[in-house]
Amino acid sequence: MPKLKLDVSMSLDGYIAAPDQTLEDPLGKGGMRLHEWLFGLKSFREQHGLEGGERRSPDDEIVAEITRGIGAVVMGRKMFSGGAGAWESDPNADAWWGDDPPFHAPVFVLTHHQRAPLVKQGGTTFHFVTDGIGSALEQARSAAGDKDISLAGGAAVAQQYLAAGLLDELQIHVAPVLLGGGVRLFGGTVPAPLELEAERVIASQGVTHLRFRVAR
Amino acid sequence: MPKLKLDVSMSLDGYIAAPDQTLEDPLGKGGMRLHEWLFGLKSFREQHGLEGGERRSPDDEIVAEITRGIGAVVMGRKMFSGGAGAWESDPNADAWWGDDPPFHAPVFVLTHHQRAPLVKQGGTTFHFVTDGIGSALEQARSAAGDKDISLAGGAAVAQQYLAAGLLDELQIHVAPVLLGGGVRLFGGTVPAPLELEAERVIASQGVTHLRFRVAR
Repeated sequence: MPKLKLDVSMSLDGYIAAPDQTLEDPLGKGGMRLHEWLFGLKSFREQHGLEGGERRSPDDEIVAEITRGIGAVVMGRKMFSGGAGAWESDPNADAWWGDDPPFHAPVFVLTHHQRAPLVKQGGTTFHFVTDGIGSALEQARSAAGDKDISLAGGAAVAQQYLAAGLLDELQIHVAPVLLGGGVRLFGGTVPAPLELEAERVIASQGVTHLRFRVAR
Repeated sequence: MPKLKLDVSMSLDGYIAAPDQTLEDPLGKGGMRLHEWLFGLKSFREQHGLEGGERRSPDDEIVAEITRGIGAVVMGRKMFSGGAGAWESDPNADAWWGDDPPFHAPVFVLTHHQRAPLVKQGGTTFHFVTDGIGSALEQARSAAGDKDISLAGGAAVAQQYLAAGLLDELQIHVAPVLLGGGVRLFGGTVPAPLELEAERVIASQGVTHLRFRVAR
């Protein structure tokens, strides 16, 4: 069965976005710092339809590995279209992913608003799921084939899947910085304690990749 | 000059103690989980005057390395004597470290109550510092010789030194567990963003050791 996997960049003090998030600056003020390790990578740039970049080992292999293994995506509504504004004033608003989103797979968006699927270029279709995280996961499982499912966030959705015991794997890319505020990946809503199993640790110049299996 | 170093076990969700701390259970309910990797180690048991234990690589070398390099210790008052109760009812209370504390070095305790030094067996003397974190660090530097200084916590004291730009090195031993609550190492009082430099990553069976230098 396809696994549900969360891959996320986090500061050492536990934040996945910085303070003062806006629609223009969804990662908050200084939050791009968390993804600095990612932006220069060839594998990341290819996935986003950008040229250039370097094959920096081992980060590049890790990103390629993640991308290769994903057959479907689940995300929260805010991850699809940012703050509530745009969506609510125009329920057919096109979010911010452009014509050729980087997913290249079916994406299941958790929302309270029904909406017809939104077909994009490059294999990405956004499906809107109004009946909860379990249903979104089931639909993603059917769509993923023999690949896995990426839980694309945000933090609230990640915590819901974790709390429901539905997350199989967690890979945290720890950026060596203290942000001092912002959006915490773990906000204290997890039924605790929750044991994890460290599966793999890979350190590189500017980031440390920690992969865990959620113990059952 | 001696460096000020913080070594601390932390859950993946950022806690260094669990909820419901008491004088009998200073790590909180379930907080011992954070130190599980440590208790069975020969180097740790030797330092605490206990027999047995195993030389489990690489954890054992890491603990021995830390112990060997420390010439003085700085800690908060609560780390010395737990909750306020015991201390305030008897200002000469002996805290909980026993006759032969595991420090084997001068320990500088931050407090508001003046008190004569407390000499213990095995090279540990507790000195009580009432004029602030800078003074405690200066005294520890003089005492440390050519070794370094261990910042023994707790979280509030660690944050004060970090915020004042006085911490040189930070080694976090990440336990693969989500505690969901308790005492956070990084409570959001750090002047942010604060860049770190990842110096070393060592993974073992039940813990991942992440060492950082604080960028200046």
